Amino acid sequence: MGSSSLKKESMKVPEPTLRRLPWYLSNVKLMKQKGEHFVSSTQISKDINVDASQIAKDLSYVRIAGRTRVGYDVDALIAVLEDFLGFTDMHKAVLFGVGSLGGALLRDSGLKHFGLEIVAAFDIKPELVGTHLNGIPIYHPDEFKQRREELGVNIGVLTVPIEIAQSITDTMVQGGIKAVWNFTPFRIRVPEDIVVQNTSLYAHLAVMFNRLNCNEPK
Amino acid sequence: MGSSSLKKESMKVPEPTLRRLPWYLSNVKLMKQKGEHFVSSTQISKDINVDASQIAKDLSYVRIAGRTRVGYDVDALIAVLEDFLGFTDMHKAVLFGVGSLGGALLRDSGLKHFGLEIVAAFDIKPELVGTHLNGIPIYHPDEFKQRREELGVNIGVLTVPIEIAQSITDTMVQGGIKAVWNFTPFRIRVPEDIVVQNTSLYAHLAVMFNRLNCNEPK
Repeated sequence: MGSSSLKKESMKVPEPTLRRLPWYLSNVKLMKQKGEHFVSSTQISKDINVDASQIAKDLSYVRIAGRTRVGYDVDALIAVLEDFLGFTDMHKAVLFGVGSLGGALLRDSGLKHFGLEIVAAFDIKPELVGTHLNGIPIYHPDEFKQRREELGVNIGVLTVPIEIAQSITDTMVQGGIKAVWNFTPFRIRVPEDIVVQNTSLYAHLAVMFNRLNCNEPK
Repeated sequence: MGSSSLKKESMKVPEPTLRRLPWYLSNVKLMKQKGEHFVSSTQISKDINVDASQIAKDLSYVRIAGRTRVGYDVDALIAVLEDFLGFTDMHKAVLFGVGSLGGALLRDSGLKHFGLEIVAAFDIKPELVGTHLNGIPIYHPDEFKQRREELGVNIGVLTVPIEIAQSITDTMVQGGIKAVWNFTPFRIRVPEDIVVQNTSLYAHLAVMFNRLNCNEPK
């Protein structure tokens, strides 16, 4: 699928599109399992309740041509989407903060299927430093800069307590990290050229609890 | 904090507000640790780079009165926010799919600090059924309806493979679940009165990879 590798470097795709593309991917994977060879945006639309014209527009970013009355080739669409979303390249990452959530992420080997491999973790706790979790070595943060260079990593996963979220972010950026996947509920600040992806499970819980309370009979 | 418990049932708060409130909470907690007793929306604004008027508007939902020139009482603001966001009530949940991510979530005891306690898990794998993970019992899905009633649970966490995401969602809803926390990249469909919170780590990865590629020198 060399044709698509050329493009993904060059284009900033709108975030809503990037969030919808994985839906299409999982939907098309399911169709493949059911034995389908071609799929149209109308079919995907029916299954996942997104407007067909929106789907066609989103898919125009990945530059795969659908054929009139036949639709997209299922195998080609899966391959192009996985490539486009970055799930076929392996991106190495380090993780800071081997607490409850950090430890859970180290154990979640499933991230590898979506292109993320955590290759080292950092924590100050003496009982953790020098040990391994799920085969991943845990180092003291003092070793970070050297290890990052050795490992050639440019993504950092942030799962530390909020008190040190900013200082650890600064450490990561100074050490050469280019993207921070922030799982803390803290709003970290970074230089302009650094990517931040916030994934606050707690914010999602807050939304879910509120909606649940609204639905409950008074 | 009885005064705020009255209100949270009654109001559907905009999602962007609900997503920002945990930022304010973590910021104010940090100020408390630094010994501050009062905080203004202007101070929070400086720290987290959100407009002060937006912060004041968001905080108007939680109905805490700030005092002119003094600001909000730090302890009261923390208590009211935690209560409002649902982090002080314990919400019981069950989890379906004890794979890599599901197992990781069962091990993440940190969710309890934000009001979510997973009390039972379900999986069809014979080697898992009847065992415990982090003290949480794993049952066969056939036992779901009965167990849910016994346990009085109305939240279901979905971490199954995409092929069965919809059918397991249907099982949960038929069994009495009122809110589904969907970690799969599959877009599940539910009746109107059921809450769905999508948390797709893979979609977040896709956004991060794309931004990172855009920033890289060509």
